[in-house]
Amino acid sequence: LSLHLTADCNAVLKALQPIFQEQGMTETVHNWEDHGYLATYIKKNGSFANLRIHPHGLVFVDLQSYNDHTKGREEVDQLLNKVEERMKELFHGNIKRVKRLPAILRGGVIDRYWPTADGRLVEYDIDEVVYDEDSPFQNIKILHSKQFGNILILSGDVNLAESDLAYTQAIMGSGKEDYTGKEVLILGGGDGGILYEIVKLKPKMVTMVGSNIDQMVIDGCRKYMRKTCGDVLDNLKGECYQVLIEDCIPVLKRYAKEGRMFDYVINDLTAVPISTSPEEDSTWEFLRLILDLSMKVLKQDGKYFTQGNCVNLTDALTLYEEQLSRLYCPVEFSKETVCVPSYMELWVFYTIWKKPTD
Amino acid sequence: LSLHLTADCNAVLKALQPIFQEQGMTETVHNWEDHGYLATYIKKNGSFANLRIHPHGLVFVDLQSYNDHTKGREEVDQLLNKVEERMKELFHGNIKRVKRLPAILRGGVIDRYWPTADGRLVEYDIDEVVYDEDSPFQNIKILHSKQFGNILILSGDVNLAESDLAYTQAIMGSGKEDYTGKEVLILGGGDGGILYEIVKLKPKMVTMVGSNIDQMVIDGCRKYMRKTCGDVLDNLKGECYQVLIEDCIPVLKRYAKEGRMFDYVINDLTAVPISTSPEEDSTWEFLRLILDLSMKVLKQDGKYFTQGNCVNLTDALTLYEEQLSRLYCPVEFSKETVCVPSYMELWVFYTIWKKPTD
Repeated sequence: LSLHLTADCNAVLKALQPIFQEQGMTETVHNWEDHGYLATYIKKNGSFANLRIHPHGLVFVDLQSYNDHTKGREEVDQLLNKVEERMKELFHGNIKRVKRLPAILRGGVIDRYWPTADGRLVEYDIDEVVYDEDSPFQNIKILHSKQFGNILILSGDVNLAESDLAYTQAIMGSGKEDYTGKEVLILGGGDGGILYEIVKLKPKMVTMVGSNIDQMVIDGCRKYMRKTCGDVLDNLKGECYQVLIEDCIPVLKRYAKEGRMFDYVINDLTAVPISTSPEEDSTWEFLRLILDLSMKVLKQDGKYFTQGNCVNLTDALTLYEEQLSRLYCPVEFSKETVCVPSYMELWVFYTIWKKPTD
Repeated sequence: LSLHLTADCNAVLKALQPIFQEQGMTETVHNWEDHGYLATYIKKNGSFANLRIHPHGLVFVDLQSYNDHTKGREEVDQLLNKVEERMKELFHGNIKRVKRLPAILRGGVIDRYWPTADGRLVEYDIDEVVYDEDSPFQNIKILHSKQFGNILILSGDVNLAESDLAYTQAIMGSGKEDYTGKEVLILGGGDGGILYEIVKLKPKMVTMVGSNIDQMVIDGCRKYMRKTCGDVLDNLKGECYQVLIEDCIPVLKRYAKEGRMFDYVINDLTAVPISTSPEEDSTWEFLRLILDLSMKVLKQDGKYFTQGNCVNLTDALTLYEEQLSRLYCPVEFSKETVCVPSYMELWVFYTIWKKPTD
C-alpha cells in the first residue's frame, strides 16, 4: 500500500493495531525513529504477520501461516480487507496504490516456482510431481502442469513441456526445411521431441547422441513425456534412426575423422551460458568445441540449428555470436525469436551455415 | 529449506543466530513450544529478517529491505549463502530441498507483478511506466516490457502487448477466413489490433464500436501501441472502416432493427467472467444480451469470434458454453487454445455460428 503523503507512522500503527489484536495476536513493535515501524503479530496457531510502516508512505503487510492453504487464504483475505478498509478511512483520497499479491506456497511437496532464465519469479500451475530423481549428472524432475501437460525440469531449469511443440519446430528450422532423405545429427534432445518430429518426415537417417550418458532423462521422458516423444524412445533403434547413449564429443571426433557428413546438425544440448565472462567459464570453450566439431561434420550446404537463450539476455547472446566468428571456418547465422508456451519468456533460436566459398 | 527429519528447532536457531548477529542485527525470539520459533532480526538501516523454524523440518528465511535493489540483493545473497552453508554443516545429508526465490520488488514506481487470470503470481520484465491514467470507466496503464514491448493493462488485467499478434490472429479465425469484400463488426477492440489487421485484408467495411465510451484507451493505444494498431487509430474513419465512440448495445439494437447484417462479428469486449455463479452476476446477463444481439446482426452463414479465458478456468468456460444454448437462435461452436506471449497462460478462443437450418 502506497500513500501520496509522508505517513504519520504512529497514526498508521494505531489504526491497524486493533485489527491484528482482534485476531488474538500478540504484538511486538520495533521503532527505528528514522525508518518507521516494524510490528510483528503472533498468533497461537503458529502464524504471524509483519506490518512494516515506512515514513515516506509505504505500508507492507506480510502474513505467513502454515496450514491448509484454502482455509488460510480466506482468513488472510479477510484480514487484508480490514487493513485496506481501515487505511481508506484514514487516508481516503491519498492512497496512491493498493496491491495484493497472490500467496506464495512454500514447503509443500509441490514446488510451483521455477524462475525464468532472466531471473523473474513465475508461478506454474503445477499440481503433481510425476518423476523426481537424481542421476549422476543432474536432478531430473517431471512435473504436471494443468495447462502445459508434463514439464521436464533439469537441475531446476524448465527444459520442455508437452505443450512446447513450438520449441521443437523452431529448432528444426520453423517448417522451412525438407528433411526427406536427409542425414541428420541431433546433439542432446533427450526428451525425444526433435527425434519424434523428424522421423515423421522420412529422413534417410537420424542419429541422436547425448552430452552426458544420461539414460535416466530418456527413461523419464519415454514414460511421462509421450505427447512430446511419442513411441520413438521405446527403442533406441528404428528404421531410420538410432540413439547413442554416449558422450557426443568422441562421437563427433570419430565422425569427423571418418569423413561422415550431415545435412543437418541440431544442437539441443543446453542454452547459451548466462555467464558473460568467457575467460572464466569453460562452458564457452566447450560450446566452441562442439560448434567446431559440428561444422566439421556439416555438409557445405548443410544447416546447424540451436537454441540461444531468453531474448532479454542480450549480453549472453552477443557473446555467443562473437564465438561464431572464432570457429575454424567462416560461418553466417540468422536468428528468430519464438514464444515457447511453458517458458514464460521469448526464446532465441539460431540457424548457422558455412559461408559460401564462391 | 526443507529437512528430511524433525528439526531440533533450538539447535537450528542456535546455529543461525550468529549469522544475523554478525550483521549487527537485534534479535527478538518467539517460542511457540508446539509450533517452533520465530526469530526477528532488525538492522539499524531499516531492514529486517524473519527466521521461521517449524518443528517438522521446515526453515523459512525472509529478508526485507528498503534500498537500491542491486546493492540490497548482493547483501541478501551473501546472508543466504551463509545460512545455507551453516545448515549444510549441521544437517548435511538430511537436507531435502533448498530453494531461493527471486526478490519481490514492492513499493517502487514500477509494478512488475500482474497475476494471471487463474491467479498465479508472475513477474514481468517491466522497465518503464509509459502511460497511467484513470478514465471514468477504468484504470488504463501502458507499461513497457523489454521482451513484449508495450503492454496495455486495464484495471489490473493484462489486455494485450505489442508482441501479441497471436491474440489478434486467433480472434480473427486463425488465418482461415477470407475478409476480402466482407462486412465486419468489431465490439471493443480499443487497442486497434483487430481493426489494423483486418483493414489490410481489403474488407468492404469494418465498423468498430466500444462497450464503454472510452476514448482514453484509444488515445493511449494510438500513441503507445503502434506496433499493434499501426496508424489505424489516427483517424476514426478510413476508406473501409469507421470507429464509433459509443456504447455497443444501442448500436447493435439499431442495426438489428434496420436489418443491417455482417459476415463477421468479433467480440473483443472482455474475457469470460471468472465468477461461476451466473444467478448472482449480471455480467453473464450482459454477455447473453451481447450474444443475442450479435446473432441478430450476423448473416446465416456468418461467424462470430470471441475470446474465452485462461484454459485452466474450466468452470467459467463450461458456464459460458451453457449460455450459448440459451440464445434466441440455436448455435454451434468450436474452440481453440492459443499461446499469447504476454499472457503467461494458454488462452481459449471461440468460433460461434448459427446452426444450419436445412
